[in-house]
Amino acid sequence: MLGIGDDAAAWQPSRSHLSVITSDALVDGVHFDSRAMPGRAIGHRALAANLSDIAAMGARPVLATVALGIAPDTPLELVLECYRGLASLAVKFDTAIVGGDIVRAPALTFSITVVGEVARTRLRRRSGGRAGDVLAVTGALGASRAGLELLRRDLDVAADAALAARAAFATPEPRVREGGWLAASTHVHALMDCSDGLSTDVARLARASGCGATLSAVAVHPAAEAVARAAGHDPLDYALDGGEDFELIVAVAPRAFGHLRERFARRFGTPLRAVGVLEREPGLRFLDAGAQTPRALAAAGFDHLANVPG
Amino acid sequence: MLGIGDDAAAWQPSRSHLSVITSDALVDGVHFDSRAMPGRAIGHRALAANLSDIAAMGARPVLATVALGIAPDTPLELVLECYRGLASLAVKFDTAIVGGDIVRAPALTFSITVVGEVARTRLRRRSGGRAGDVLAVTGALGASRAGLELLRRDLDVAADAALAARAAFATPEPRVREGGWLAASTHVHALMDCSDGLSTDVARLARASGCGATLSAVAVHPAAEAVARAAGHDPLDYALDGGEDFELIVAVAPRAFGHLRERFARRFGTPLRAVGVLEREPGLRFLDAGAQTPRALAAAGFDHLANVPG
Repeated sequence: MLGIGDDAAAWQPSRSHLSVITSDALVDGVHFDSRAMPGRAIGHRALAANLSDIAAMGARPVLATVALGIAPDTPLELVLECYRGLASLAVKFDTAIVGGDIVRAPALTFSITVVGEVARTRLRRRSGGRAGDVLAVTGALGASRAGLELLRRDLDVAADAALAARAAFATPEPRVREGGWLAASTHVHALMDCSDGLSTDVARLARASGCGATLSAVAVHPAAEAVARAAGHDPLDYALDGGEDFELIVAVAPRAFGHLRERFARRFGTPLRAVGVLEREPGLRFLDAGAQTPRALAAAGFDHLANVPG
Repeated sequence: MLGIGDDAAAWQPSRSHLSVITSDALVDGVHFDSRAMPGRAIGHRALAANLSDIAAMGARPVLATVALGIAPDTPLELVLECYRGLASLAVKFDTAIVGGDIVRAPALTFSITVVGEVARTRLRRRSGGRAGDVLAVTGALGASRAGLELLRRDLDVAADAALAARAAFATPEPRVREGGWLAASTHVHALMDCSDGLSTDVARLARASGCGATLSAVAVHPAAEAVARAAGHDPLDYALDGGEDFELIVAVAPRAFGHLRERFARRFGTPLRAVGVLEREPGLRFLDAGAQTPRALAAAGFDHLANVPG
């Protein structure tokens, strides 16, 4: 492999695999706040979002390019801290940073591209779900949103919950190994990451699969529970609409789910929890505990285009 | 191939080739001026810079991702025009735009990544040059700088020269086919694109190859000649330091150069011109016409890092 310092970087892709690619841009003041977050967290999150997209294809990351926009008032130390956060996550997941660009920009900006590889039979799209599939998520949801709340204001929360929420927000762990493992099962029909909030992303997976979905038992993270209560918010809102948890959403054949859940928990020490079901009827619904019939649910998570003028 | 609309795009890389990747970021007010340039030219140039990097490895482009930052005051029509310019160049060189991101940003920003492919024996680095090699460039230099001058002020220049200069600036043609063709010759030891000015880029190629270089006969574009004269500038400065011509710089074994030059001109209808020689002695020199000994030359082209604070 030939890295930084030539016109382009070169590598030998695996002969038996497909290549996958994803790009994200993150801008100071839009996607993060460099005055309120440590540089390491900014860099970590920027790469985590892309690694999560790669994991959501069932692929493993191979390399990344990073184009960095630096504002006139960006302290050099902040840039270095961002890069350290990014590089240490890259090392953790064997992702080589092979090049990029450094330019002047009006705000600190990261444009990251990650290339990964996946065996053809393991590639998972969000459109592969089937009516009747169990919808499940890895881990639990809402902790990143809770961490954001703790950045915004002081709340009286137990120390361990505060620590967990802050870590979930600042240094979320993309489910890279979990994605590859799940994609190895033929019973896993669709895979997607939950970066924009469960309601938004399940609605997308269902629509792409030509289905609707009913959510019922959403796995709320204990830290989200604690912070939301202290803030006077509904913990379920954090889990449904918070986003940036970088957990994986999986559509699994119902007869295979129980066994997969057990093997997943044993392999990763993390639960794989059922949160709903894919259905023939379009739309997104939520079945409250004890209710007989589900209610319609609006997808209220982050919509990229809603932030764009036009 | 699986494109936009999933977590990532997937493709089957050629089994017998290396993959190459390059990323660039371009920011309004830094790399281009959206008030002074048509949108089509902005988009065209943004992709051309990346295609040129791919060509400079001897590779052919396969796909691109585009992360677009849109400012609150960016007119939608400008965004669409930029995208059209970018997309029509992509079509011309069989490059699929497979994904990306659209985000809010303080200034119109393009972050483009291009992936290409090259047979292992055809990969050319800038570090492969050898003392004694002929340094040659495709086409002629300085026309892009001339076009920029015409954007800045009205000058009394012949219509055909003005047209050529404006086109060289607005819609430069990356030497994609030429790069692949040159890299097929084992006599071509090093390849690099001339995006930052001949003096800067030849100095980089020479240094990477553990050599120095003396430039002598620089191929000045006739339009650069005409515009520089009208502006009261030295045309040689446009050619040496102007940059963004996206021509290729080649280091060729001296005994093979004559034949290669002839075949190149026949194949592409464009000259491949000797502009100097790689030497054992480090540094960059220029031999003026009629002079006995070369003078030291400062690399005065665009330096990306010089634009970055810190």
